[in-house]
Amino acid sequence: MMENAGNNKAKEGKFISELLSLKEQMRFKGSFEVPEGTRNIVVAGMGGSGVVGRIFKEMYSRLPVCTVNGYMMPDFIDENTLAICISYSGNTEETISAYSQAVQKGARTVIITSGGALGNETSPKVIIPAGISPRSALGYMLMPLLRSFGLVTEADIEEAYRILDGMDADNSREEAIAREIFDGQRLPLIYGTSPNESIAYRWSTQFNENAKVLALWSGFPELNHNHTMALKGTYRMENIYSLCIVSSNDKRVLSRIKATEEVTGHRFMAVMGPRGVSELARIMYLVHAGDYVSYHLARLRGVDPLDVSVIESLKEKLKPK
Amino acid sequence: MMENAGNNKAKEGKFISELLSLKEQMRFKGSFEVPEGTRNIVVAGMGGSGVVGRIFKEMYSRLPVCTVNGYMMPDFIDENTLAICISYSGNTEETISAYSQAVQKGARTVIITSGGALGNETSPKVIIPAGISPRSALGYMLMPLLRSFGLVTEADIEEAYRILDGMDADNSREEAIAREIFDGQRLPLIYGTSPNESIAYRWSTQFNENAKVLALWSGFPELNHNHTMALKGTYRMENIYSLCIVSSNDKRVLSRIKATEEVTGHRFMAVMGPRGVSELARIMYLVHAGDYVSYHLARLRGVDPLDVSVIESLKEKLKPK
Repeated sequence: MMENAGNNKAKEGKFISELLSLKEQMRFKGSFEVPEGTRNIVVAGMGGSGVVGRIFKEMYSRLPVCTVNGYMMPDFIDENTLAICISYSGNTEETISAYSQAVQKGARTVIITSGGALGNETSPKVIIPAGISPRSALGYMLMPLLRSFGLVTEADIEEAYRILDGMDADNSREEAIAREIFDGQRLPLIYGTSPNESIAYRWSTQFNENAKVLALWSGFPELNHNHTMALKGTYRMENIYSLCIVSSNDKRVLSRIKATEEVTGHRFMAVMGPRGVSELARIMYLVHAGDYVSYHLARLRGVDPLDVSVIESLKEKLKPK
Repeated sequence: MMENAGNNKAKEGKFISELLSLKEQMRFKGSFEVPEGTRNIVVAGMGGSGVVGRIFKEMYSRLPVCTVNGYMMPDFIDENTLAICISYSGNTEETISAYSQAVQKGARTVIITSGGALGNETSPKVIIPAGISPRSALGYMLMPLLRSFGLVTEADIEEAYRILDGMDADNSREEAIAREIFDGQRLPLIYGTSPNESIAYRWSTQFNENAKVLALWSGFPELNHNHTMALKGTYRMENIYSLCIVSSNDKRVLSRIKATEEVTGHRFMAVMGPRGVSELARIMYLVHAGDYVSYHLARLRGVDPLDVSVIESLKEKLKPK
């Protein structure tokens, strides 16, 4: 018993140190060259590595950006395509397959990885520190994209650092949200808002992996065209914890949230607003809030936030014999 | 009482006639010219009109396709962009805004609508029949894209017609699924599979609008990197009805589903496979299955599948005064 408790404490300590590293990741200096003549961009990756492409696509639209979360690259890729392949481990089956197709079709390629099979490839690479959970390495994988496309300044990075540091010091609001979810054994229903709806997707995956809890997600304004009908009429609403993530200071977003409450009679249980001035700080603050809510929920449930053994067995099972 | 019952019957009859029209929509002949020199495509639309872009993007990847479900067009659009703006009513605020930006930036534009404000614009247009629910007009909105990009043959269309006709005649399996969902007051959790994950999204929105029920959705293989952890560890699983939608005959998809069951101990409550040979028939069969499950669930719940009054009030409330 004592040993198990000690073991659990050690695991929890490792996960906390991963959470604490996110602010340092903002300062990670890796970058790559965007080839002249690039006409379109594909960002391939799965899970914790794949969410990077979703966040990037919402921040950068000077060129068409397609995200790939699977084995197959789109047909259009050619020598004018920059294919950015992200796999924290470097061994993700789907991403390796997508990378091979990109090479075969003559696309310009960049790899972001900590090692593995992709780490041995000859394409331009950004090698990031190994040894943490892929989902905890979001900063290492995202910052090279933002730096390389000129989307962040040093001031933005320092602002993000300060704001993440503040949340590391005090995440009592996130803990309180986790407790409400836990006490009611509720399923989190996370709403993102334009232009950063992908933060809601990130939250849902953090609930899945850290707290081992199913989560729903959707985004404004799209949800006002379908999902809104269910907010009024559904059953099981007492099992749901609804939370809105507001990344911009656009007042229209808040009035849309308010109007949705008025017409449905449903009251969102929490609305998280942004902190900071830069887009980087605002996004990372809200991402990190989800990290903490899911971590606290894991703690309350007594599950190990690091444990992804089910996914590991699945990968093993799917390996070609 | 009698009057209400009669009124409800009439409404139900109208909705059924909308469901029955889908097969006829396959034969809709509208199309547009894809301008030479098109380098990328944007498909803008919301809700029932927006899902068209998601389905198209998974069927066509010879050029980069970006879907827009909001007010803002991406920065990259220029004279080499074909911007396809879809709004069944022609009055969707977000799509009108996206359309104006496309015009302003000199993109080539196409409008697919039944009328409204967009129907009065001078861009090349496909005018589709008015008078049904936007979500029931999927065929009218999708077929012009598939025809214009050469993605369907007349044989595909006739195959889809026959297969949809068969489901209109016998949807007892869909009714049985609806009954299981209803009896347990369960929330549907719909899994799409590569390369047609958007069908799961379509199902979830049909549950929302027709049955007024919250629904979750996700897709293979992405979900094997996060969501899978929750399938083993979550609470509230007894309130969930999980269903997989398999659109291809790729055996690897089925072995992934089986492996997911083995490692999580969770048994999917239904797996719907495709019918037909053509991609059109396979997709439309599975789309229509979701139409029927959500319709039967509405019937069992005693709610009007046509009613979207909550969304209508919201639009009214958000109109600039």
